[in-house]
Amino acid sequence: MSKQNWKPGTMINPLPAVLVTCASGGRTNMLTVAWAGTICTNPPMCSISVRPERFSHSLIKESMEFTVNLTTEQMAHATDWAGVRSGRDYDKWSETGLTPIPGVKVGCPSIAESPLAIECRVRSIMSLGSHDMFIAEVVNVVAEESLIDKETGAFMLERAGLINYSHGAYYRQGEQIGRFGFSVKKTGK
Amino acid sequence: MSKQNWKPGTMINPLPAVLVTCASGGRTNMLTVAWAGTICTNPPMCSISVRPERFSHSLIKESMEFTVNLTTEQMAHATDWAGVRSGRDYDKWSETGLTPIPGVKVGCPSIAESPLAIECRVRSIMSLGSHDMFIAEVVNVVAEESLIDKETGAFMLERAGLINYSHGAYYRQGEQIGRFGFSVKKTGK
Repeated sequence: MSKQNWKPGTMINPLPAVLVTCASGGRTNMLTVAWAGTICTNPPMCSISVRPERFSHSLIKESMEFTVNLTTEQMAHATDWAGVRSGRDYDKWSETGLTPIPGVKVGCPSIAESPLAIECRVRSIMSLGSHDMFIAEVVNVVAEESLIDKETGAFMLERAGLINYSHGAYYRQGEQIGRFGFSVKKTGK
Repeated sequence: MSKQNWKPGTMINPLPAVLVTCASGGRTNMLTVAWAGTICTNPPMCSISVRPERFSHSLIKESMEFTVNLTTEQMAHATDWAGVRSGRDYDKWSETGLTPIPGVKVGCPSIAESPLAIECRVRSIMSLGSHDMFIAEVVNVVAEESLIDKETGAFMLERAGLINYSHGAYYRQGEQIGRFGFSVKKTGK
């Protein structure tokens, strides 16, 4: 295990590849974001980082709302495309064929094809350099009913075919290794 | 695609499952974190969120440094175990069998078994509720040399066997769907 030193870089992997939907002044858009994550459990909070020059940046800044839509293998092409094209030049809904559904607690639509949409209200914006970080509180979650087990009520997210983003590429989820806590259950450690 | 509304929750998935190493006053520890991500490209920055009651929280707050170590299938048991146990009660290095190697630009060690260690200096700490978010700048990256292609010099992170964390369980990486930009290359859209 010999090591090599590199200059600083953004190397946390894998990361989620989410479609962020937003709206302001009658305009709506979607943006692919990998610089996204959970930052607090209680209250439930998440952050997304967006370049100020992106079309969605102004929509989110104006409305102070956005929705994080998880993405699946079926949505992979649209997820990549929405990340390389701009809402200034395209209607990303018609181009991707994804279906907007009205937000519940926020003004922006979410994506019907997404197994899970996380509606967020922006609490603060931090300018970091190339990206602004939108620090937000989750205000509502919209879940795909067909993934809810009728008997147990469990949400079977593992059946959604989620994708992730790692080192410049999109990947399918592999097999499950174990649930949180498996190491102490297994060994009694 | 009928939908169900849920109360707010932390539902962004999948997420990285990283081992954060830290040190202060001669004490060193590792902590498993899924509330972690990249927040800025230039300068390269990342954030980790840690509960104030965690042993590592005080070490990071005192030293204002930490290292994010990516985790692999081989490290899955240790990754889970370091997340459910406390450095107050255990020497996590001897318990997990992971090997500390000295930090390069930071005072805390990184994990030799990790394919990639990201050395970070904390810029600010944000108290959000259950968790404090450590907003940090990447100051150095330590890469496993055996993953670097001798001919091309490319870093083959896809061969590292990275794991991710989704909805309460650890998962292997699945097959690659496509590289960033594949949607415009393929369709010319």
